[in-house]
Amino acid sequence: GNALLSSYGTTIFEVMSRLSDEHGAINLGQGFPDDRGPADVLQTAADALLTGWNQYPPMMGTPGLRQALAAHAARFYGLDVDWKTETMVTSGATEALTACLLGLINPGDEVVLFQPMYDSYLPIIRLAGGVPRFVSLKAPDWSFGRADLEAAFSPRTKLVLINDPLNPAAKVFDRAELDLIAEFVQRHDALAVCDEVYEHLVFDGRRHIPLMALPGMRDRCLKIGSAGKTFSLTGWKVGYVTAAPHLLQPVAKAHQFLTFTTPPNLQAAVAYGLGKEEGYFTGLAAGLQAKRDRLSAGLASVGFDVLPSAGTYFVAADISRFGFDGDDQAFCRWLVAEAKVAAIPVSAFFVENAPTSVVRFCFSKKDEVLDTAIERLRNRF
Amino acid sequence: GNALLSSYGTTIFEVMSRLSDEHGAINLGQGFPDDRGPADVLQTAADALLTGWNQYPPMMGTPGLRQALAAHAARFYGLDVDWKTETMVTSGATEALTACLLGLINPGDEVVLFQPMYDSYLPIIRLAGGVPRFVSLKAPDWSFGRADLEAAFSPRTKLVLINDPLNPAAKVFDRAELDLIAEFVQRHDALAVCDEVYEHLVFDGRRHIPLMALPGMRDRCLKIGSAGKTFSLTGWKVGYVTAAPHLLQPVAKAHQFLTFTTPPNLQAAVAYGLGKEEGYFTGLAAGLQAKRDRLSAGLASVGFDVLPSAGTYFVAADISRFGFDGDDQAFCRWLVAEAKVAAIPVSAFFVENAPTSVVRFCFSKKDEVLDTAIERLRNRF
Ligand SMILES: CSCCC(=O)C(=O)O
Ligand SMILES: CSCCC(=O)C(=O)O
Repeated sequence: GNALLSSYGTTIFEVMSRLSDEHGAINLGQGFPDDRGPADVLQTAADALLTGWNQYPPMMGTPGLRQALAAHAARFYGLDVDWKTETMVTSGATEALTACLLGLINPGDEVVLFQPMYDSYLPIIRLAGGVPRFVSLKAPDWSFGRADLEAAFSPRTKLVLINDPLNPAAKVFDRAELDLIAEFVQRHDALAVCDEVYEHLVFDGRRHIPLMALPGMRDRCLKIGSAGKTFSLTGWKVGYVTAAPHLLQPVAKAHQFLTFTTPPNLQAAVAYGLGKEEGYFTGLAAGLQAKRDRLSAGLASVGFDVLPSAGTYFVAADISRFGFDGDDQAFCRWLVAEAKVAAIPVSAFFVENAPTSVVRFCFSKKDEVLDTAIERLRNRF
Repeated sequence: GNALLSSYGTTIFEVMSRLSDEHGAINLGQGFPDDRGPADVLQTAADALLTGWNQYPPMMGTPGLRQALAAHAARFYGLDVDWKTETMVTSGATEALTACLLGLINPGDEVVLFQPMYDSYLPIIRLAGGVPRFVSLKAPDWSFGRADLEAAFSPRTKLVLINDPLNPAAKVFDRAELDLIAEFVQRHDALAVCDEVYEHLVFDGRRHIPLMALPGMRDRCLKIGSAGKTFSLTGWKVGYVTAAPHLLQPVAKAHQFLTFTTPPNLQAAVAYGLGKEEGYFTGLAAGLQAKRDRLSAGLASVGFDVLPSAGTYFVAADISRFGFDGDDQAFCRWLVAEAKVAAIPVSAFFVENAPTSVVRFCFSKKDEVLDTAIERLRNRF
């Protein structure tokens, strides 16, 4: 096999989900909701399946979904997006990310990455011949400053890859942090690939700010979104990229050889969903915020040192007090087997300077599932 | 953008489909059927969508579809496949191919390719650092011999990529040709990636023989199939790979970072479809064979020099007698604009030694559509 890709393990999310199933555990590892998703969106998909077109749609996505993406960008962020030249549909945000990285990076280009980072970033950057430069964020506040960016950016910086809201830190970048990143991107004449799959999962009255919406950044950013996350349908694998034409064109060159197209009935349903009234989006965030509070309180009640969560499906917790010699992976293996609750070791999101005593729990589950998980933990601690 | 990928144009199938739409043409270019697909398969997908799981399925595919793939391999080819270690579901055969090539090739590895070849092969091989070695097949018989393989294989051969039945030549490799390829693969201790998406679209009573079924080849082949082609639902983008565990494992390492998973309701429907009775599969081939005959006769009646078609959705035709200076691309641009019929120039499937006077027509269309296309051609020639 390819030596580079083979050097990486199976993704931690799949590994923990398999272990969870084997042990009959409650799966608070891999990030997905356990509800059915919006009934009207599901029905739209079923109707389109039974009465619509099931052959290849256009490679860039259906006009309906692309128009809905432009309208969504205008409605939520005041962005003026030309659907015909600035939007592309992909088979999930993972494909969108891979298309962006393979489509933009040339061998030797430097890529600035924030750790913790999603585990598909680095293998694909290396496959493209890119050279990673890391900014390491540290629990509990996951902050960074000018000096960190000074150290990571260079004349060879091609792009920065930012995940905001940030999985697994549950951090939402604030305006000052985004301004700082924007300053460095512009100063180095670089690009930003913005993994914003959790854009609608932001809590406590905050609103997500796309890096693309900042002054001078409109034509330097590729904004990636996820229908899976926005409509609680992670299995649908519908993602999208919004970017200026000169950035989207090379990304489409990669996309056409990765999946080429995405099922048209799912695209029709996502187009419908993106047009739903404001209440849908605020209700989604409010529902998840309540679950965040429920799980966080439960974890605290059994002795976890719970970190703040400003967005995403996730809350992280420090486990130092439980021992395990600062080995978050050992803790998670023990937890799934003995407590029958799956979590994700946060060290899996780092290649260097990893914290060793932070684990991630997913709270996008039914209340009774969260409560049962806490009971299981209570019986063990 | 990435210089390598940017050096390739937009895929000819998308280009011709866009031109076809712009000119209000009948699209006999891109390969897809224009019927609705099997009603029971569609209904299974709709039911699974409305009542089943719409979150991430397992990364390798749903157990149901993987079991169906193993049963299909046993039923049609007598292959003994372990579903748990030897099957993987992908988001279409394009993704399957890309996962195989990125997962297996190391920089400097040689890859033997038969021209004409599908247009995603070469960019991905080059992206992986592979070195292409071509065997060029020539119309009208698209044959090759021992000397051609001697010239293409070397001690550095990592794998051969074979598309059988072969798009756009509509050639089905015969047993002697497959034996010859198998001999070279084994002699060079190489692998074979077998793009067999048209495995069920074979005519005149012939049966497709997977290279994997030949003596000594079971553990050297990665067999790729396509639900889109087998169930006339090309927009679903469900593909699959069958291979020995030591070959599938590195391919899964690539797959997890390309799309990770595929919609579970579509997987459920394809699992159901693969279990359909023999009559479904023979009926599919018989229906397409009748369409092949209809379009071939029509093309001949208006003066095309029609080549044989033993499988696939396609029939190729020589256009030398129409002039166009041996420029099949100019002919196709003229045809779509003036006759309002889209076709694909076969030179798009070559990087060297391209024939210049062969075009491909897709016949998987309603009879009245084929008839109207012929009428349009008749009015022009
Ligand atoms: C693609 S599986 C992982 C889902 C996810 O985003 C996570 O759990 O972090
Ligand atoms: C992926 S679009 C091309 C479909 C096809 O296989 C063809 O037309 O050859």
